[in-house]
Amino acid sequence: MFRHTKLLQCEAKPDGPDAVLARKIQELIGGAWGEMTVATQYLFQGWNCRIEGKYKDLIMDTATEEIGHVEMLATMVARLLENAPATDVAHAVTDPAVAATMGGMDVQQAIVGGGGAQLRDSNGVPWSGAYMVASGNLLADFRTNVAAESQGRLQTARIYNMTDDPGVKEMLKFNLARDTVHQKQWMRAIEELKADGIEGDIVPDDLLDVEDQVHNNTIWQLSDGGSGPSGGWSHGENAIDYLTDPEPLGGPGTAPKPDPELYASYAGGQNALGTAKGKAQQAAEKLR
Amino acid sequence: MFRHTKLLQCEAKPDGPDAVLARKIQELIGGAWGEMTVATQYLFQGWNCRIEGKYKDLIMDTATEEIGHVEMLATMVARLLENAPATDVAHAVTDPAVAATMGGMDVQQAIVGGGGAQLRDSNGVPWSGAYMVASGNLLADFRTNVAAESQGRLQTARIYNMTDDPGVKEMLKFNLARDTVHQKQWMRAIEELKADGIEGDIVPDDLLDVEDQVHNNTIWQLSDGGSGPSGGWSHGENAIDYLTDPEPLGGPGTAPKPDPELYASYAGGQNALGTAKGKAQQAAEKLR
Amino acid sequence: MFRHTKLLQCEAKPDGPDAVLARKIQELIGGAWGEMTVATQYLFQGWNCRIEGKYKDLIMDTATEEIGHVEMLATMVARLLENAPATDVAHAVTDPAVAATMGGMDVQQAIVGGGGAQLRDSNGVPWSGAYMVASGNLLADFRTNVAAESQGRLQTARIYNMTDDPGVKEMLKFNLARDTVHQKQWMRAIEELKADGIEGDIVPDDLLDVEDQVHNNTIWQLSDGGSGPSGGWSHGENAIDYLTDPEPLGGPGTAPKPDPELYASYAGGQNALGTAKGKAQQAAEKLR
Amino acid sequence: MFRHTKLLQCEAKPDGPDAVLARKIQELIGGAWGEMTVATQYLFQGWNCRIEGKYKDLIMDTATEEIGHVEMLATMVARLLENAPATDVAHAVTDPAVAATMGGMDVQQAIVGGGGAQLRDSNGVPWSGAYMVASGNLLADFRTNVAAESQGRLQTARIYNMTDDPGVKEMLKFNLARDTVHQKQWMRAIEELKADGIEGDIVPDDLLDVEDQVHNNTIWQLSDGGSGPSGGWSHGENAIDYLTDPEPLGGPGTAPKPDPELYASYAGGQNALGTAKGKAQQAAEKLR
Amino acid sequence: MFRHTKLLQCEAKPDGPDAVLARKIQELIGGAWGEMTVATQYLFQGWNCRIEGKYKDLIMDTATEEIGHVEMLATMVARLLENAPATDVAHAVTDPAVAATMGGMDVQQAIVGGGGAQLRDSNGVPWSGAYMVASGNLLADFRTNVAAESQGRLQTARIYNMTDDPGVKEMLKFNLARDTVHQKQWMRAIEELKADGIEGDIVPDDLLDVEDQVHNNTIWQLSDGGSGPSGGWSHGENAIDYLTDPEPLGGPGTAPKPDPELYASYAGGQNALGTAKGKAQQAAEKLR
Amino acid sequence: MFRHTKLLQCEAKPDGPDAVLARKIQELIGGAWGEMTVATQYLFQGWNCRIEGKYKDLIMDTATEEIGHVEMLATMVARLLENAPATDVAHAVTDPAVAATMGGMDVQQAIVGGGGAQLRDSNGVPWSGAYMVASGNLLADFRTNVAAESQGRLQTARIYNMTDDPGVKEMLKFNLARDTVHQKQWMRAIEELKADGIEGDIVPDDLLDVEDQVHNNTIWQLSDGGSGPSGGWSHGENAIDYLTDPEPLGGPGTAPKPDPELYASYAGGQNALGTAKGKAQQAAEKLR
Repeated sequence: MFRHTKLLQCEAKPDGPDAVLARKIQELIGGAWGEMTVATQYLFQGWNCRIEGKYKDLIMDTATEEIGHVEMLATMVARLLENAPATDVAHAVTDPAVAATMGGMDVQQAIVGGGGAQLRDSNGVPWSGAYMVASGNLLADFRTNVAAESQGRLQTARIYNMTDDPGVKEMLKFNLARDTVHQKQWMRAIEELKADGIEGDIVPDDLLDVEDQVHNNTIWQLSDGGSGPSGGWSHGENAIDYLTDPEPLGGPGTAPKPDPELYASYAGGQNALGTAKGKAQQAAEKLR
Repeated sequence: MFRHTKLLQCEAKPDGPDAVLARKIQELIGGAWGEMTVATQYLFQGWNCRIEGKYKDLIMDTATEEIGHVEMLATMVARLLENAPATDVAHAVTDPAVAATMGGMDVQQAIVGGGGAQLRDSNGVPWSGAYMVASGNLLADFRTNVAAESQGRLQTARIYNMTDDPGVKEMLKFNLARDTVHQKQWMRAIEELKADGIEGDIVPDDLLDVEDQVHNNTIWQLSDGGSGPSGGWSHGENAIDYLTDPEPLGGPGTAPKPDPELYASYAGGQNALGTAKGKAQQAAEKLR
Repeated sequence: MFRHTKLLQCEAKPDGPDAVLARKIQELIGGAWGEMTVATQYLFQGWNCRIEGKYKDLIMDTATEEIGHVEMLATMVARLLENAPATDVAHAVTDPAVAATMGGMDVQQAIVGGGGAQLRDSNGVPWSGAYMVASGNLLADFRTNVAAESQGRLQTARIYNMTDDPGVKEMLKFNLARDTVHQKQWMRAIEELKADGIEGDIVPDDLLDVEDQVHNNTIWQLSDGGSGPSGGWSHGENAIDYLTDPEPLGGPGTAPKPDPELYASYAGGQNALGTAKGKAQQAAEKLR
Repeated sequence: MFRHTKLLQCEAKPDGPDAVLARKIQELIGGAWGEMTVATQYLFQGWNCRIEGKYKDLIMDTATEEIGHVEMLATMVARLLENAPATDVAHAVTDPAVAATMGGMDVQQAIVGGGGAQLRDSNGVPWSGAYMVASGNLLADFRTNVAAESQGRLQTARIYNMTDDPGVKEMLKFNLARDTVHQKQWMRAIEELKADGIEGDIVPDDLLDVEDQVHNNTIWQLSDGGSGPSGGWSHGENAIDYLTDPEPLGGPGTAPKPDPELYASYAGGQNALGTAKGKAQQAAEKLR
Repeated sequence: MFRHTKLLQCEAKPDGPDAVLARKIQELIGGAWGEMTVATQYLFQGWNCRIEGKYKDLIMDTATEEIGHVEMLATMVARLLENAPATDVAHAVTDPAVAATMGGMDVQQAIVGGGGAQLRDSNGVPWSGAYMVASGNLLADFRTNVAAESQGRLQTARIYNMTDDPGVKEMLKFNLARDTVHQKQWMRAIEELKADGIEGDIVPDDLLDVEDQVHNNTIWQLSDGGSGPSGGWSHGENAIDYLTDPEPLGGPGTAPKPDPELYASYAGGQNALGTAKGKAQQAAEKLR
Repeated sequence: MFRHTKLLQCEAKPDGPDAVLARKIQELIGGAWGEMTVATQYLFQGWNCRIEGKYKDLIMDTATEEIGHVEMLATMVARLLENAPATDVAHAVTDPAVAATMGGMDVQQAIVGGGGAQLRDSNGVPWSGAYMVASGNLLADFRTNVAAESQGRLQTARIYNMTDDPGVKEMLKFNLARDTVHQKQWMRAIEELKADGIEGDIVPDDLLDVEDQVHNNTIWQLSDGGSGPSGGWSHGENAIDYLTDPEPLGGPGTAPKPDPELYASYAGGQNALGTAKGKAQQAAEKLR
């Protein structure tokens, strides 16, 4: 169960309106790597966590924090849109800066949201439940969390460089900091999983001696760059072999004989065209 | 530019039909973490890579391999559907095993694909271009690649446990092996990025001294589990502080005064309800 | 900012496994009218609310409650999947009840979620940010909330009738009760908006004397049922006129002359076919 | 069965080109609350209506009208795009008004539609069949219809305020009028359902004495605003109790023991880490 | 403007319930090639048609017919669901035929639609506005219409073979007939476009002498099958040359130097790793 | 299996940056008719092709070529974004051309892609696996391929007219040429299918004598244009009859009696309202 205080986790006050920035911040709310993704990802990971204690607590602590991040960003968007030229008419524009603003606005924030944030990305695409992942395997999920916090901080840093509004930059500095600590925390939690003997190096920690032993340590060179084998990954301890002239292991990828009632084109054999139709009709006869 | 041989990267021959398994394998083709995701993810990462040489080559080698994995899985699906009961009529079923099969089939594979694979997941949801990521930042992307190969091998292993068809298991053993080596390879490439001084520990390797220094090393305890601080992450060298009683740093999340022409409900101030309508009408008057 | 307790808002303990029900409950989590929709709908409505005080507080109280409902349902799904036949093989099924279960399962819950809930509906379609609405206009939004709680209770009641597991029914009784009170509460809040003079009968409470006065009180009979005019809506005080033989008010819906460089097919006039191509080529010449 | 006349339901002639407005009108065509939503929503409600007569007729009359609204708006879009700067080159722009127009255009209207409307919203997101609802329960659906007409008129009014083209405003006045009467009509139809004894106050009109009687009349205060209880909803006849210090009713939201073959991370019990892997391997052995 | 009669275009009465078939018919309603696609495709093509007269009339005649097809199929779905086992409990099933039915049902038809059709495909994926196309170019669109009617009749024929219900087969015979005539009609309309001199053989009928003249009549052999050149397409009049050993015409696909403020990984040149970070920091300094 | 060379199929070098064009080219990459669609469409058609030899080889040759087209376009996008004003601040704009650029940019290319292409269309909507089709029936699929290449060349031609950058125009000339030959090739392959006796004129080549013989050669006039019958399609040999006053063939589209436990509104019969609730309660009683 959750409780809420109306105080924001961090202040979210821009120094002035900026409708273009309000659009860009939608990426941090409802983009594939936005706060909605990490909030729901951690919530479902926590609810689905089979190990009571420190792991589940760490996940739920962070999940609860992230809902508050969505709140900060949604509030920031509404404030950036105050006095933005939502209902101004395009042909009345005489100033290039206003022209850039009007062209770069998210018109749904006005038409649909009445000057508020949407649960969509910076191009207006609705956030999708397919963005977040909670697989039940903590190593797979913590690695996904590291990736999510990395992509998230990257996008935040890019947007930080796109504004000079001191109030916005102040909030983004907080967000950058939280993304930094979250990157560190999930990397540490991965070490802990290994130290506790719960997971190993490979996800899942099983079927390792069942899998194809010939091909589980070779990189296949299928592009002609040629520099791949010079990488550190193919040298020293635990080097991964670079297979420079890999050949296909399987036979031709032929498709099987079709069900005549599904009318896939067929020629009765590789060399005898023309009888598929008859077969199909015959078969279909049965059901009439 | 690409070239193709009709020989499969690895053999893909089931010992018999299995329409339920053909549905499950859709997850490995068109799921959020399926082969289509890694194929396009690596292709776009490679095309967008700004460092010529070993990194780009490694990415393109693996990208090209993954297109071949989609090919193997699509071929396997078509073969698993040979002689599957696509056009049988439900009420004629007298065998529980056939009933389970008919209930568990992906009917689109027959109706839409004529007995072939779709570019959709195991519930029939179309693959989305939003699943794959190529940010230009190699550390962020390699971390995402590690996550993708981990989720991918996890799903492959689960499906491996769901069948006893020797031909399918044989192919999945190859896939498991490739996912193993790809997990290793991206982890090694991350080490290489650091060794080469291109990236550091945090993505992006910048704004670290600009971000909020007070809050970039604290985990906020916002759930009541209580065990979070006992984790290894908060002990030893580079321990992350566990803030056990975090307080909001910001003020209340109030929304600003609305644009009257957008008709957000408003009361003229916190204590004086009732005048918003008048204001809105007045403003609208202008344009009539 | 939010805080979380690990205690559930209401108990969520099934008496036994039921993988088919676990799939159906996905509709209440990630369906268009599921708890994720109302949770985010109320959160964004609250953050975007321009009237501090009772309305905003009511919205935020309910929003916070709904996150807890997602939690209950996600927990219920994981528990219903305990000991469910996820990795059993279809052809080994000898019992019709198991066959019905295996056919009716959501295979992604196993393959993707490892036995946990997804943020998807009962057919596996990911939840979309386009489902939730926060327009800034409280009358429009409260009416949408009444609709959402009505559709939500309807779906909950239908699923209540689809199970006889006492533990599940116990939880659903709680959910039914909450949906009942939420229906009542938003209807009461609508009355309050009018009593406070903030909104009227029509959304938005403006442009009423600007809109077409001839056609704002007539129902157009365009189907041949004939019983429409007998409805109470067209009788008594404030009757809405039933226009039984409505005629189009506009001219023909012709499309304008195309831009030749966009190559819409055109015939140079209504009676002279054949010159569009020439015009297009001429225009394109300019840019070469 | 349907028939069509080429005369528009209402005239749709702009006084001049306006590509930015043509983009905004996409929201009224293919947005979540656009005309496509109400058209299909009413069609499916009508086709699925179990009560022959006045209700079904009212629904089908309105459904048929709405298809004509899509037609008007699509025609308006094509006409607004006549002579719009679709193929002009950005770097040649010397006028801020043209710059605002070019920045604010929907480029797909030109590239994909050849100067015609799309079935997408104002950000180019395709209309989704998940937007429309036809539940079979008329009270739930009529409430949804009231919401849809409210959100629809709100968006129309906002766009009305964003243009000063007399021809567009003339058409929007008609649309505003139709949205007004549709709001009224569905509210009257809700009263009629009650007067006819078909539905009651709560959807569905059942399970009311089965649902949790303790919690079907209380609002849970879970945010710290404090003003919720002062609302009219908690006073007078049929007051809804405001529970100011609600406590969770359930136990902790623990997830059950995982299926070892799905590789959810597990520690063999709450206090004994480390044995999950062994179990999983053992289980997997069976199938090899 | 449209008008509606309650009489169906063709009878839609099944002889008995069949919930599995009701799910399959969803593909014909809301699948990528279902009736909703052709209905909206033809409507938008008609509204966007720049040539008044026979072409526009043919399109609008067919468009109006297709709305009636959606109506027939939606009615059929509701009737197939009458007395279907929607609320039966899975574990009570003792009959394999019922098991197959329960496993193969679309549970949303019951939970969301109350026993009615959805605007979704046979896997429950919502219909998308991106499925339909109206480009303004009649040759491109008529070709797309031929494709749509071909895929549509193919799916109808497959489903025809999946049932032995005489009432359903009777309706599908009508649908097959309409798809046949629509295939013929669009092929004839393509001939007419050429006869009228409006369009030629290639879409668009322009830029033909501007395009690359060396590569507009060669098929590139990039797979190793070897039989491609034996096809009729490369023989006789207007033969298309088969280029059996095509070589890339372009240089390497290098990506340009990145914007340092976007933090794409960079190494300062092909041979000098390590300075990207410094550059990026320097650049970012400007904005602080 | 695939192999890759880093040399591009055709040169892709713009003469200068053009962020607006970079957005438009997204349509050619990830739009419904973009290169990703034809690449995957041909791949799946080839893998699912049941006729070994010339058809499969033609498909796979073209499929492999199309992956290279995605590569060219993605490279072009990255190069067009070099030195584009991604991190410039809107209010600093003083030049209308820059304003038009900033307003017309795809902000995700910077924020998400770091200056690289996305797998999305020109409005930022992610590419969908539902766009591509591989039905197993070669006639249906080749017709779809003709449509795809027609829509694709049309969009390429439109974008060709929207730029005057010589480098971009050079590449587009190559793309136009390839789309021309692909249109020709699929039309020739359709002729070949007939010449080989594999398929006929109608898809599928079956059920032609089973379908409704009365209605498989009539166009129904349902719109009031009146010129439809004058078209060549209704004259000469194999004329299609134009049915100028078509009447519905079916009875009224009534929905069946609902399952009381699904709570569809019902009135106990066509003339006796009011008893549905009682019935529903009675039925629900059973399960309590």
